[in-house]
Amino acid sequence: MSKSIFYHAGCPVCVSAEQDIISLIGNENVEIVHFGESKSRIREAENYGVTSVPALVTPNGNVLHINYGASMSEVKG
Amino acid sequence: MSKSIFYHAGCPVCVSAEQDIISLIGNENVEIVHFGESKSRIREAENYGVTSVPALVTPNGNVLHINYGASMSEVKG
Repeated sequence: MSKSIFYHAGCPVCVSAEQDIISLIGNENVEIVHFGESKSRIREAENYGVTSVPALVTPNGNVLHINYGASMSEVKG
Repeated sequence: MSKSIFYHAGCPVCVSAEQDIISLIGNENVEIVHFGESKSRIREAENYGVTSVPALVTPNGNVLHINYGASMSEVKG
C-alpha cells in the first residue's frame, strides 16, 4: 500500500492523535479508519498487528501504537 | 518550535520507530535526540511530558508515545 492507515475508535486520545498525524504527514498520505463506522476493518487491523488504538500502520506494514486509547478487545466490545 | 523532536534511547523498538518516522514525515522535519548521547536533553523531554521512549513531540508540543521501548526511569538508569 502507498498510504499509511490510521485506525481509531473515536476516543479523545484517538482524536487528538489523529489531528497530530494529519498535521505531520498530510491528509493525502493517510487513510483514517474509525472502527465505530467500519467494524469490518477490525480484522484487517488485527492482521497488521494492531493491538490498541490509536495506531498507525505505515506503507511498509509496520505498526506504530500511538499513546493509548483502548485495547482491541475494548474496541470489539 | 517548527520541527518535531524524536526522543529515543537506542533500543531496537526505538530504532525501528525512528526509521518509520523519518520515512513518514521527512528527515528535514524532525530532530533526532538520542539520550545516550545527549543526557542533558532528558529534562527537556520530561518537561514536554515524555514518559517513555520512543516518543515524538510535535511542533505544537503534543507528545506521541510510539510503541514502547523503555520508561524514562530506565533511560535515566
